[in-house]
Amino acid sequence: MNQVRTLQACKLAGRESQPQNTVIDLKTCRLGDGQVVIIAGPCAVENEEQMLELAQSLKELGVHIIRGGAFKPRTSPYSFPGLGEEGLRILARARELTGLPVVTEVTDVRYLDLVLRYSDILQIGSRNMQNFGLLREVGRLQRPVVLKRGFSATIEEWLLAAEYILAEGNRQVILCERGIRTFETYTRNTLDVNAIPAVKELSHLPVIADPSHGTGRRSLVAPVARAAVAAGADGLMLEVHPCPDEALSDGPQSLLPVQLGQLMAELRPLAEALGRRL
Amino acid sequence: MNQVRTLQACKLAGRESQPQNTVIDLKTCRLGDGQVVIIAGPCAVENEEQMLELAQSLKELGVHIIRGGAFKPRTSPYSFPGLGEEGLRILARARELTGLPVVTEVTDVRYLDLVLRYSDILQIGSRNMQNFGLLREVGRLQRPVVLKRGFSATIEEWLLAAEYILAEGNRQVILCERGIRTFETYTRNTLDVNAIPAVKELSHLPVIADPSHGTGRRSLVAPVARAAVAAGADGLMLEVHPCPDEALSDGPQSLLPVQLGQLMAELRPLAEALGRRL
Amino acid sequence: MNQVRTLQACKLAGRESQPQNTVIDLKTCRLGDGQVVIIAGPCAVENEEQMLELAQSLKELGVHIIRGGAFKPRTSPYSFPGLGEEGLRILARARELTGLPVVTEVTDVRYLDLVLRYSDILQIGSRNMQNFGLLREVGRLQRPVVLKRGFSATIEEWLLAAEYILAEGNRQVILCERGIRTFETYTRNTLDVNAIPAVKELSHLPVIADPSHGTGRRSLVAPVARAAVAAGADGLMLEVHPCPDEALSDGPQSLLPVQLGQLMAELRPLAEALGRRL
Amino acid sequence: MNQVRTLQACKLAGRESQPQNTVIDLKTCRLGDGQVVIIAGPCAVENEEQMLELAQSLKELGVHIIRGGAFKPRTSPYSFPGLGEEGLRILARARELTGLPVVTEVTDVRYLDLVLRYSDILQIGSRNMQNFGLLREVGRLQRPVVLKRGFSATIEEWLLAAEYILAEGNRQVILCERGIRTFETYTRNTLDVNAIPAVKELSHLPVIADPSHGTGRRSLVAPVARAAVAAGADGLMLEVHPCPDEALSDGPQSLLPVQLGQLMAELRPLAEALGRRL
Repeated sequence: MNQVRTLQACKLAGRESQPQNTVIDLKTCRLGDGQVVIIAGPCAVENEEQMLELAQSLKELGVHIIRGGAFKPRTSPYSFPGLGEEGLRILARARELTGLPVVTEVTDVRYLDLVLRYSDILQIGSRNMQNFGLLREVGRLQRPVVLKRGFSATIEEWLLAAEYILAEGNRQVILCERGIRTFETYTRNTLDVNAIPAVKELSHLPVIADPSHGTGRRSLVAPVARAAVAAGADGLMLEVHPCPDEALSDGPQSLLPVQLGQLMAELRPLAEALGRRL
Repeated sequence: MNQVRTLQACKLAGRESQPQNTVIDLKTCRLGDGQVVIIAGPCAVENEEQMLELAQSLKELGVHIIRGGAFKPRTSPYSFPGLGEEGLRILARARELTGLPVVTEVTDVRYLDLVLRYSDILQIGSRNMQNFGLLREVGRLQRPVVLKRGFSATIEEWLLAAEYILAEGNRQVILCERGIRTFETYTRNTLDVNAIPAVKELSHLPVIADPSHGTGRRSLVAPVARAAVAAGADGLMLEVHPCPDEALSDGPQSLLPVQLGQLMAELRPLAEALGRRL
Repeated sequence: MNQVRTLQACKLAGRESQPQNTVIDLKTCRLGDGQVVIIAGPCAVENEEQMLELAQSLKELGVHIIRGGAFKPRTSPYSFPGLGEEGLRILARARELTGLPVVTEVTDVRYLDLVLRYSDILQIGSRNMQNFGLLREVGRLQRPVVLKRGFSATIEEWLLAAEYILAEGNRQVILCERGIRTFETYTRNTLDVNAIPAVKELSHLPVIADPSHGTGRRSLVAPVARAAVAAGADGLMLEVHPCPDEALSDGPQSLLPVQLGQLMAELRPLAEALGRRL
Repeated sequence: MNQVRTLQACKLAGRESQPQNTVIDLKTCRLGDGQVVIIAGPCAVENEEQMLELAQSLKELGVHIIRGGAFKPRTSPYSFPGLGEEGLRILARARELTGLPVVTEVTDVRYLDLVLRYSDILQIGSRNMQNFGLLREVGRLQRPVVLKRGFSATIEEWLLAAEYILAEGNRQVILCERGIRTFETYTRNTLDVNAIPAVKELSHLPVIADPSHGTGRRSLVAPVARAAVAAGADGLMLEVHPCPDEALSDGPQSLLPVQLGQLMAELRPLAEALGRRL
């Protein structure tokens, strides 16, 4: 019932308009054709030395894409807002050093040119999923966009947000389930694992999962990451920090590099059992 | 427990920083000193003739402020997006005609100058409550701002969004409770009447209620409007349309002008019983 | 859309089956014909002396019905479970002393006879709203029943729970909105004021509100009580304790008797302004 | 923070009180020591011939435990309530025929003896998770109990409900995550996959998942079942019906036996990749 309504409205994002999966080629990996893509990095870029060292570790672990925030939307005006352009420059150096593509969040149409200059993949964060002006602008680019689900957006609203980007001409949209707001307080959010196969049946777009924000607890990241892959996620976005207790944001949900290594070692046989590969 | 955390963070929005209510003078009314302020108008400005006729009716009913949308954030890219600048021009003519101040939504930093030129009061919509770039920009103005609660924002997050505006220097923030997203589907949203006295004890800022979006059903608007006033709301924002069945948006929740008249007639003795006035 | 589905299913609770309001005569008051009925008392009966003294105060304040719990459903097996039959005996003495009817919760079909012996009105608590065996049993009695809304029940599910009681022959059902579970944590629950007029349009049954559980905070009880009455509630259920800080349960949301007196003084002109009476 | 509070209150269910997993031996399988246990059967027992034929198919597929409802809690008093004792007798015949243990729901303390006579494992349904009288009664037995999470219960409340059973002496509690109520309407409920590892870290009790109720859509059952196992669930409870379109309840979420077979074929390599077995 809801399904019919959704698909009617999503002329471009809907599976009917394109039966085969959209596959996005990102140099080091392909999103949407069976590979389990690993995106990892710190919540926020904090300083160059730390970032480059971490990037090197991620590269050695086999991570496909580096993430890192330069413009951070924060609930309070008094929290660390990210390093801005300096953070972008550091990210670009991490890219040079490792050869891995870089994804970073753009929060404002006015910073779009800047972010484009230093990164490979744009991220629209959860709070901006219905920032329609921003969606239209990234829709006019030919650059892959990770579109995070709003923390209280229905699946239908999320697909319609993707439709805004597609309708402007940019077809490289990567959906990212990152947890929804529910009554449960033990976890920071509730990663909605059901949304992963739901989106795969409703749409041809690739979908990844972010168990770091989805759970908010380091101890739950690995099992929920495995769950997301088993449910059909095309990839994972994971927060990693060399020293989570000192992180300027999201420390409690960040993995150590060694923990990411363990998780990736668990994911390889899992992917194989599912007929996929890391 | 939550209270303490909230108040620590809200240096400027918190009641501790200013024990007496913030009062905002809007020419035809005063928000925050006991008056029940009525803001009314169509969801979207649709055409000049209709808008001017409606504005005249609202003026005659005793409405204090006219609302009307020119830039409409819509879930689907294929829905009516508002008339843009032409809508603003029509609003400005309604203002001239009636002498009433006008409030309209600004959805994008790039349209801020435009919206400023044609209106008296800015509105930040529910989906933009955490559009921090936009909050900072309106914070740099000396213009009253209606800050709608995000449909899934906690009271704490809402006050921190106000804090973004206050921290830039603009002290004329009007909070607007417009319903939150819950599991209930009979109503479009769940107007959180509890948030009204909660905000009044936590903050010195005026708070109004929007029972049109809060309920999404015309038949529930009047009783919930009365409830909001009885709970302490400083005013009401109401959708009114001369022909709701033909409205381009929000028809099912719009009152006819005659229904607004009835509601205002009910509110007068109610306000008096509460030691207030319309 | 939802409305149609609800009304079809509720053959007996639906407004179509009976256009005029159900009015329930409770000796000291009439629920459903315009009067604002006040039900007040402690969360749990704790000891005889305290209860009788409090009952006397409530009588003097003009309260219509006394509430008090003897069997308390508690989240933890290690919390105070109520005094059981001894609590019922004390309640019955409060009834004798004051001449006021008494309402108390029944949590288990096995205690039904016992509760019937000592009380005038039965209460089905929020957690038992879908205890269908219990609903059927109270449906076979000719005794008024307060049916609290489940804290996560939709309006439709609530009316269908009432339908269980009506279908067995007992037509004296009083609906009680007591707050729903949402993402908001500042309040214990979110009293859904919208549900009050919604239920009044969907059903002929009387509906009361419980702002004590609805908010969980003493400072919010009075404004939310006023809101519920302004929205059309037929009455209020309020927790009152002579010494809230020492209460064995629900202290933070209990009013002092003097605060109840103030609230009732506020409600009288409010009721009058609404064309009603206390 | 929440974690500490939970564990303090759960003297018996908490991991501190017993570091090693509780393992429950159910003849055909062991819950809690690594095996992936499959429980399957129809929502409601509808007639003998169908049930016995289905039971035989389930046995052949390698299912460990048969489920089937005889007493069905239904939202409307006019829906099919189950066959009652006749349903239990049919279940007992399915047990004889197959040698598999049988689990069925008990909804009322008055039917407890009856249900005990015909079944091996008791189920407490979602709506009865806080039916404390029923919890205490099953706590006095020495019989395994599947305790479904209330559809709006926090993890803490769920563990405290288990504590009610444990505190009476019955240590054979099996927790079952079956989906929570959120704002999302595309799925019937939102299976909370995060709760599975959360419960495994907080408690020593086994936890299973019910993706049939968790999603409400047949097409999502298999991927969410895989996700639950990958997240650490000790087993799955699945609705299976030979002819879902004609089922008296829950047809849209029931698998055909052949679909269950496919799912189990997928789960075997997945379990192995996780170092477990079906």
